[in-house]
Amino acid sequence: MKKFEDLGFSKVDLDRETRTGYPEVIYGEGKTAEQIRQIMKTLIETHGKVMVTRLSEEKAEILTEAYPDARYHAVSRILLYGSPREKYGGDVMVLCAGTSDLPVAEEAAVTADWMGCKVNRLYDVGVAGIDRLLAYREEIKKASVLIVVAGMEGALPSVVGGMVQRPVIAVPTSVGYGAHLQGLTPLLAMLTSCASGMSVVNIDNGFGAAYQAALILKLATEGVHHETALS
Amino acid sequence: MKKFEDLGFSKVDLDRETRTGYPEVIYGEGKTAEQIRQIMKTLIETHGKVMVTRLSEEKAEILTEAYPDARYHAVSRILLYGSPREKYGGDVMVLCAGTSDLPVAEEAAVTADWMGCKVNRLYDVGVAGIDRLLAYREEIKKASVLIVVAGMEGALPSVVGGMVQRPVIAVPTSVGYGAHLQGLTPLLAMLTSCASGMSVVNIDNGFGAAYQAALILKLATEGVHHETALS
Amino acid sequence: MKKFEDLGFSKVDLDRETRTGYPEVIYGEGKTAEQIRQIMKTLIETHGKVMVTRLSEEKAEILTEAYPDARYHAVSRILLYGSPREKYGGDVMVLCAGTSDLPVAEEAAVTADWMGCKVNRLYDVGVAGIDRLLAYREEIKKASVLIVVAGMEGALPSVVGGMVQRPVIAVPTSVGYGAHLQGLTPLLAMLTSCASGMSVVNIDNGFGAAYQAALILKLATEGVHHETALS
Amino acid sequence: MKKFEDLGFSKVDLDRETRTGYPEVIYGEGKTAEQIRQIMKTLIETHGKVMVTRLSEEKAEILTEAYPDARYHAVSRILLYGSPREKYGGDVMVLCAGTSDLPVAEEAAVTADWMGCKVNRLYDVGVAGIDRLLAYREEIKKASVLIVVAGMEGALPSVVGGMVQRPVIAVPTSVGYGAHLQGLTPLLAMLTSCASGMSVVNIDNGFGAAYQAALILKLATEGVHHETALS
Amino acid sequence: MKKFEDLGFSKVDLDRETRTGYPEVIYGEGKTAEQIRQIMKTLIETHGKVMVTRLSEEKAEILTEAYPDARYHAVSRILLYGSPREKYGGDVMVLCAGTSDLPVAEEAAVTADWMGCKVNRLYDVGVAGIDRLLAYREEIKKASVLIVVAGMEGALPSVVGGMVQRPVIAVPTSVGYGAHLQGLTPLLAMLTSCASGMSVVNIDNGFGAAYQAALILKLATEGVHHETALS
Amino acid sequence: MKKFEDLGFSKVDLDRETRTGYPEVIYGEGKTAEQIRQIMKTLIETHGKVMVTRLSEEKAEILTEAYPDARYHAVSRILLYGSPREKYGGDVMVLCAGTSDLPVAEEAAVTADWMGCKVNRLYDVGVAGIDRLLAYREEIKKASVLIVVAGMEGALPSVVGGMVQRPVIAVPTSVGYGAHLQGLTPLLAMLTSCASGMSVVNIDNGFGAAYQAALILKLATEGVHHETALS
Amino acid sequence: MKKFEDLGFSKVDLDRETRTGYPEVIYGEGKTAEQIRQIMKTLIETHGKVMVTRLSEEKAEILTEAYPDARYHAVSRILLYGSPREKYGGDVMVLCAGTSDLPVAEEAAVTADWMGCKVNRLYDVGVAGIDRLLAYREEIKKASVLIVVAGMEGALPSVVGGMVQRPVIAVPTSVGYGAHLQGLTPLLAMLTSCASGMSVVNIDNGFGAAYQAALILKLATEGVHHETALS
Amino acid sequence: MKKFEDLGFSKVDLDRETRTGYPEVIYGEGKTAEQIRQIMKTLIETHGKVMVTRLSEEKAEILTEAYPDARYHAVSRILLYGSPREKYGGDVMVLCAGTSDLPVAEEAAVTADWMGCKVNRLYDVGVAGIDRLLAYREEIKKASVLIVVAGMEGALPSVVGGMVQRPVIAVPTSVGYGAHLQGLTPLLAMLTSCASGMSVVNIDNGFGAAYQAALILKLATEGVHHETALS
Repeated sequence: MKKFEDLGFSKVDLDRETRTGYPEVIYGEGKTAEQIRQIMKTLIETHGKVMVTRLSEEKAEILTEAYPDARYHAVSRILLYGSPREKYGGDVMVLCAGTSDLPVAEEAAVTADWMGCKVNRLYDVGVAGIDRLLAYREEIKKASVLIVVAGMEGALPSVVGGMVQRPVIAVPTSVGYGAHLQGLTPLLAMLTSCASGMSVVNIDNGFGAAYQAALILKLATEGVHHETALS
Repeated sequence: MKKFEDLGFSKVDLDRETRTGYPEVIYGEGKTAEQIRQIMKTLIETHGKVMVTRLSEEKAEILTEAYPDARYHAVSRILLYGSPREKYGGDVMVLCAGTSDLPVAEEAAVTADWMGCKVNRLYDVGVAGIDRLLAYREEIKKASVLIVVAGMEGALPSVVGGMVQRPVIAVPTSVGYGAHLQGLTPLLAMLTSCASGMSVVNIDNGFGAAYQAALILKLATEGVHHETALS
Repeated sequence: MKKFEDLGFSKVDLDRETRTGYPEVIYGEGKTAEQIRQIMKTLIETHGKVMVTRLSEEKAEILTEAYPDARYHAVSRILLYGSPREKYGGDVMVLCAGTSDLPVAEEAAVTADWMGCKVNRLYDVGVAGIDRLLAYREEIKKASVLIVVAGMEGALPSVVGGMVQRPVIAVPTSVGYGAHLQGLTPLLAMLTSCASGMSVVNIDNGFGAAYQAALILKLATEGVHHETALS
Repeated sequence: MKKFEDLGFSKVDLDRETRTGYPEVIYGEGKTAEQIRQIMKTLIETHGKVMVTRLSEEKAEILTEAYPDARYHAVSRILLYGSPREKYGGDVMVLCAGTSDLPVAEEAAVTADWMGCKVNRLYDVGVAGIDRLLAYREEIKKASVLIVVAGMEGALPSVVGGMVQRPVIAVPTSVGYGAHLQGLTPLLAMLTSCASGMSVVNIDNGFGAAYQAALILKLATEGVHHETALS
Repeated sequence: MKKFEDLGFSKVDLDRETRTGYPEVIYGEGKTAEQIRQIMKTLIETHGKVMVTRLSEEKAEILTEAYPDARYHAVSRILLYGSPREKYGGDVMVLCAGTSDLPVAEEAAVTADWMGCKVNRLYDVGVAGIDRLLAYREEIKKASVLIVVAGMEGALPSVVGGMVQRPVIAVPTSVGYGAHLQGLTPLLAMLTSCASGMSVVNIDNGFGAAYQAALILKLATEGVHHETALS
Repeated sequence: MKKFEDLGFSKVDLDRETRTGYPEVIYGEGKTAEQIRQIMKTLIETHGKVMVTRLSEEKAEILTEAYPDARYHAVSRILLYGSPREKYGGDVMVLCAGTSDLPVAEEAAVTADWMGCKVNRLYDVGVAGIDRLLAYREEIKKASVLIVVAGMEGALPSVVGGMVQRPVIAVPTSVGYGAHLQGLTPLLAMLTSCASGMSVVNIDNGFGAAYQAALILKLATEGVHHETALS
Repeated sequence: MKKFEDLGFSKVDLDRETRTGYPEVIYGEGKTAEQIRQIMKTLIETHGKVMVTRLSEEKAEILTEAYPDARYHAVSRILLYGSPREKYGGDVMVLCAGTSDLPVAEEAAVTADWMGCKVNRLYDVGVAGIDRLLAYREEIKKASVLIVVAGMEGALPSVVGGMVQRPVIAVPTSVGYGAHLQGLTPLLAMLTSCASGMSVVNIDNGFGAAYQAALILKLATEGVHHETALS
Repeated sequence: MKKFEDLGFSKVDLDRETRTGYPEVIYGEGKTAEQIRQIMKTLIETHGKVMVTRLSEEKAEILTEAYPDARYHAVSRILLYGSPREKYGGDVMVLCAGTSDLPVAEEAAVTADWMGCKVNRLYDVGVAGIDRLLAYREEIKKASVLIVVAGMEGALPSVVGGMVQRPVIAVPTSVGYGAHLQGLTPLLAMLTSCASGMSVVNIDNGFGAAYQAALILKLATEGVHHETALS
């Protein structure tokens, strides 16, 4: 089987599912609807499924006409076609600090769901009203992987990280103004968190956080085994 | 009475106590011991008291020889001579997130104390172990003014700010590395906090926070009264 | 009584008034009119009053149809419904450097007023014509708390800070161009001010400054009392 | 059992192992040898083991005199006392791009090992000689979790991320000059990586990457199970 | 012959072809269609050919009416009139990492072609699917000069640089979001590349890369000869 | 006469006095004492005078041994040999905000004096004690050119600029900490000043400010005359 | 006579002409046409003349209806009413590097002219075609004051500064892209120029440069005289 | 033959000469003398020659004891052993703006020489004394490739780039202060240069510029030939 399809403007990576566990995902921004349609066609023919992220409503309309079975989620701006085979054990909890972080949180939740994870949502539990968060402490502790989405000063992941023994993936959002620097401030803050066991993805990158969460559940579901050491 | 004393290299502001409630405070960094001695002399003659901040141990030794009644606090690097007349009601609580924030927290505590405030200290209560903070919730709620010192991601003031009905002054510290940017990250984070009623001072500026806290207690102690409106 | 109402997209913090002295304030940006309406409904049912900041004229029209008793202030972009019970002693003076800083200054003034403070306005007194400021020196000295709003190089708070014995809260604005960096320059300048007793809030955050000013007057009005020390 | 021990300058978090799976780890920088010794004492009494990171050789000498059973690793600057009970299945592969990244890579490797992970090292496989990396492709694909350490432009994690179906944790290092900005450049580059399934920790934070890797193996070893959904 | 033509708003550099090998190229942004038309007129009269870059479709329409022989390339936004005399030996390979980098890659390709170079295109070979790149390794090694265009983390030039013995010119693009900082991140990353023999041009500056590539082929075509040393 | 002397490591610009009114000034940092000595020799032979700035005490000792007639000013770190012929009318007033700004202010004062200007000093008149500045209002208004040196938030030039009808040259200093960013903050603040008629030089560049001030007095002393217009 | 007129939203500075030599200039951005009209009215009544900068065409239309004698310059976006009494000796040369810098250059030229200076324009003489600049060397040397406007890398002022014995005021422009950072790059570059006698104003601030140039010619025209020294 | 030698701490790339035309060059900073010695040993055994850059005098002494035939250049901090076989036609001209740029210029010159290029040096020809540069215009035009080194505002490459028809590689240096930002300012300025045909390397990276220059002469010496196009 050939490893990629050359469409001229794009070399569609047909080998990616074999290599990384998931077919190529189409990043919708900066591509025309026609370019996306052609890449979708190639991916559907090979894998029977495809996901498009950061897709505007305008392009989504064109593409759902071409693929009536595709589903568009307006809040997360994701287009889905088909479903992955696998369903993992455990679950991903997606937390967000405020109502305005919803689009990013939903990008994470919809992605994780489509990638085969059970998803629990816990929204609007920012640290300025810490009792809202503490009210869910038991549920939070039971989650297998936690995606914590926050704009403003990005303090939520630090508090959550100190409560759990599971990996926390922090997602800064571009929600804020002034000294918030379009999300750079919570990004940097999360990177210097005093909590351990936490890592960070790009600003507004709900997709990336969910992708890693799914890989963690995939590993946990498939089980771990011993390798021969290199050194 | 003349409003300032011209020492050539310095015009000592003798009117400041009348104007702002406190005599001039000497910022020790970037001045020679001899320059500080001369300014101290002028201020002691006028006010009978003086405070020097950011003073190295070397200069402190020279100055305490000249003024044996002066007290040097090594952790906060402050030199004190004499005491202010007034003692305010209420109290200032100084919180800090980690052990490494101590020098800044102590700069705040020693300053507030010398300015006439009762000071309570609550140290090493960072958000990654939120229960340490919650264990003191009642004490925190009773404080009149709160100074919250934090390095790393600077999340502590947001959590404290959401617990109290009193003004919170946040102090970012230069404790951290990498994405912490010598304190710029917690500074910016505190400025975009989701908690209300909070304001921020410069990195490591424990002195500035305490100064404002003292002005707040001074106002509260003197009581408020109605003015004729301008507009 | 339950501590928050879960609307799905939002967990409205019903306990905040008890905890922090004021009900939750709705930040209007990044929320739909419908989301705001639902949060308003919950808050009005609990507290009988609500404030919405950063509200566009379009959304304000929709909401004032739903709540005809609500008042919209176009310059400050604030929507008010009901009034707080308390009226504090003392007053807040809001100063601004230039005509273009008016929206931020008004956000501060309207907020402080609604929170129960007497407000005096002193506008367009930037330092390039220092005599305008000096002409009001006596009024300035009498204010209980001062909110000083400035764009450009943000020099006004330093000058005011050196004139008074009351707390000064500085608000940088996004008014300027080039090296002004959308307000970062006056923000950083205010943080490194040579005046003592001054703290700073986020760029254009008139609301935040007024909120803290109100907490200060609240403390002063309620009076201060002695606590048992922790340490 | 009490949840923390108050040493005055520090509130040692005795509950952390219960809460997060590991006892508190001591960050050695900015603490005196004496402060570290006291915290070590408390932690050893409670947990029988302790890890200190970023510890200078000078302080290490003092502490190994106090605790002769403690082991100091000079390259990673870590001091270890005792060992965790658990040993996880699977393994962590630590890759680094160049010889100068060794201290950070070793901080990751030593931490992961102490936390109960089997560790494989693959060093000096930077992308400018891609064949060195490709020569180990099969070993790389078999790793359970990958920690990829790189300075300069930080390109290695992107290449590795595209080869595997396991989570990749990227660690930028401060190795470089000029436009490298003390590690900010590879940090930002890793955050905008074109590879999926990758997350990032702070500059030089080998410890943080290993900590998360250990939590992932812990989850995978304990197995995943289904929760009741919140929403 | 006069060295420049003074149009008042512009001094058209008529001597540039003699001096630098190519006539002045018109940068279309920030000039009116009328200004461009006048400069074109002057350049066509002198050189019989002209190139305009960064030209919007609107202005292109006006100018192709005035000059029906001019050709507009919509993707690269370049307008061409006439052709250079020379055709160089060797070739320029233009590589790009992703589909969204096409406009910049095409700006490079169209420029190099018009300047007399044979151009090979190799698009969408980003490092997250390294096998796509490796599949063309032999072609890549045969290129005389390589222009490598990449957005996101900008890792592609480092990998290519390690494969070839020919000069590599790296072009960062503004394709990305968040920590990508409008292209600053790949720009800085490329400047700190671990590969040797690589230099960098401004963000999105496909034109500049192609211009230098053409000068290199020009030198190689004309052959090199020995000068008398200065020192 | 030849226009420059080639010393191999340096091409000493012998024509500069003719062209710009002053002989080349030697920037002492980053040059060895021996390199400076050779350049001094060349300049003294041609012009009979020379100035060296940013000269450490160590190098100054070596050079004053070689040139016993040279005078070294320790505060400003300037070495002078000989004097310019001309003495201009008018005067330069050098103001500074704080005692720590003295080295920069003195660099300006010593330079202006050596270049033929009458210099008045007005030091430690920062805006937090505005009355110190106002006490000298009449003297300030009479100055021909004003150099205003300030660290911290850099507010002094704005206030001075609004008082006078003469050119103001602002000099930010690196005196400050935290948000002061080694002088970047006052630099940017001065550039966005609300006062007109003000321009800015690099951080700590007292020399540059004095140089321009001297050119202004030179012009004023020589008188102005009408040219034929170009356009 | 009163020193300012209080319009509520503005305190018009009527004393400014006396103090600084020129009446207040209205910065048009961020003010409504109606606000500008009221300030114009006050200034015209007092001074008989007024200048408005950064004025959009829309507002200009409204204001020229109200004041038919006012003249609007579309390129520089300046509105003028009346003329200053004085005409200074000497002249200001305004140079710019490229055609796209014209609006800023014209802002400088129109301002200087209105303030009473003779203005010479020398446009599109950027350093990449150095012979265009050298062709005017004699004219350049004869100018009394030079305003040098440049975008891109901002190199022109350094070259001009090395040619003349008159003050050079450098103006960076926002013309450029990518690493140009909206003008920050030429701003910083001009501040670190290797030429002496040069100072810098804010990005695109043609007005500010012209204002200082006019003050210099005013001083030169009025002549300089000796003051009594302060120190 | 094996492609790399695994020394544990380093995988020495033995294939690099075949692949890229030159053996691996050792970057001396951040490696111990012993590590360098081992890598040198491996490279000398394979290639008979080696170059070490950024080598301190201390390490150089140790290494020249081990390899008495190695030559150390103190200004450029380069250690050389053996010589490349090839000598290319054409030449590289290395220009620098000031005396303080010498170490970087020499790093470029020594590297280019060792790589087989004829090197001409033209030092201290900064743009503030443009006649020094113009005096060498004919020599500059004859160079095959130009490396232009400049600190401060980095204007020299733009002027040179406009004079020649050969590729220009610009090298910013860390020579400067304040707004120079350790070389970031000239780096960014060079990237936005108005001259065409110019590319840029990292701050102080004389080595990198020379490496690319050598590749260009290598191509020109070997001659160019036609490939079959990919697209």
